[in-house]
Amino acid sequence: MIEKSCVEFIDILASKEPVPGGGGASALVGAIGMALGSMVGNLTLGKKKYADVQDDIEVILKKAKTLQDELMQLVLKDAEVFEPLSKAYGLPKETDAEKAEKDRVMEEALRLASGVPIDIMEKAVECIGLHEELAQKGTRIAISDVGAGVLFVKSALIGASLNIYINTKLMKDREHAENINKRANEMLAKYTKAADEIFEAVLAQF
Amino acid sequence: MIEKSCVEFIDILASKEPVPGGGGASALVGAIGMALGSMVGNLTLGKKKYADVQDDIEVILKKAKTLQDELMQLVLKDAEVFEPLSKAYGLPKETDAEKAEKDRVMEEALRLASGVPIDIMEKAVECIGLHEELAQKGTRIAISDVGAGVLFVKSALIGASLNIYINTKLMKDREHAENINKRANEMLAKYTKAADEIFEAVLAQF
Repeated sequence: MIEKSCVEFIDILASKEPVPGGGGASALVGAIGMALGSMVGNLTLGKKKYADVQDDIEVILKKAKTLQDELMQLVLKDAEVFEPLSKAYGLPKETDAEKAEKDRVMEEALRLASGVPIDIMEKAVECIGLHEELAQKGTRIAISDVGAGVLFVKSALIGASLNIYINTKLMKDREHAENINKRANEMLAKYTKAADEIFEAVLAQF
Repeated sequence: MIEKSCVEFIDILASKEPVPGGGGASALVGAIGMALGSMVGNLTLGKKKYADVQDDIEVILKKAKTLQDELMQLVLKDAEVFEPLSKAYGLPKETDAEKAEKDRVMEEALRLASGVPIDIMEKAVECIGLHEELAQKGTRIAISDVGAGVLFVKSALIGASLNIYINTKLMKDREHAENINKRANEMLAKYTKAADEIFEAVLAQF
């Protein structure tokens, strides 16, 4: 799916095909955001004016590349875990036995399907940390791209959270559901704020 | 460029190559956002429960497809207009004649380069309007995707605005620069608020 062209990806996303969906789209937007950060890092590399941060930039670029790759893999992973959920919705529930079986399969599919957006959120959080450093150390000529980058990563964080809440809402095991929601809520509260601060710091340099 | 695979696009975006940059990335994120809206429209199409909005959904889907295509074309257009700007930066400015010529070429390149993100913003505004309708008329089973969709389109709107401000800042013709900034400011103020309201309306349905 991620080997398809951007144009094809957009077309399949727009179709009624079950995948990719909101989770995969969030992971892709996160990867785009981190790639903008990497671009700023790469434009800073080898520049005399930024001689004192070259080692830091190299570390940032390495971490950023890993995060981009991981987010692209999560586009695929999100599709993988959505398929069983999509099938579970269609299971019969005429008899008590069928109903019990559907409940069991749904619960398992919902657990799987909410695990991936949690992973996407965790990667987005790491991307926000790297943008924080880039806002301070990256070349001034491309500072607007740190702003756009952190904005996209923040959107990926929020977009993934929606895909958690819509799944946990349907879980029978409320304790498990609330644990996942709590984790998502905590990341959202802390890191949307952090992303906004980085964005404002970038704007202040305009 | 948009015919490259998503993985390749991310890699080139991350590199120090001058294009794609923040403008092109914004257009792509906007297309992803509109595609999520289209997905919700396509999942609503042909569903008895939503019989009374079928005609509206068909109109939305047609407009959405056009906007997706236009945003993908703006990914290319942004790259096209950035190339002359990138070259203009490198022009010599040793003599007065060279300096005058560089100023002239830069000014023209800046005008071109700030025109495309204005177009991206205008398309994002239209996408937000379609999401507003989808939040009301789209199938409830995919309502979270309207939330993620409008969020991504809003990010595209803001991301494109950064690429306007960074260009207009360098323009000598301050009247022209302020006119463009004013247009961007107006769209930002009105439509980030509209997008936030749509997002909140979606969240309230969870």
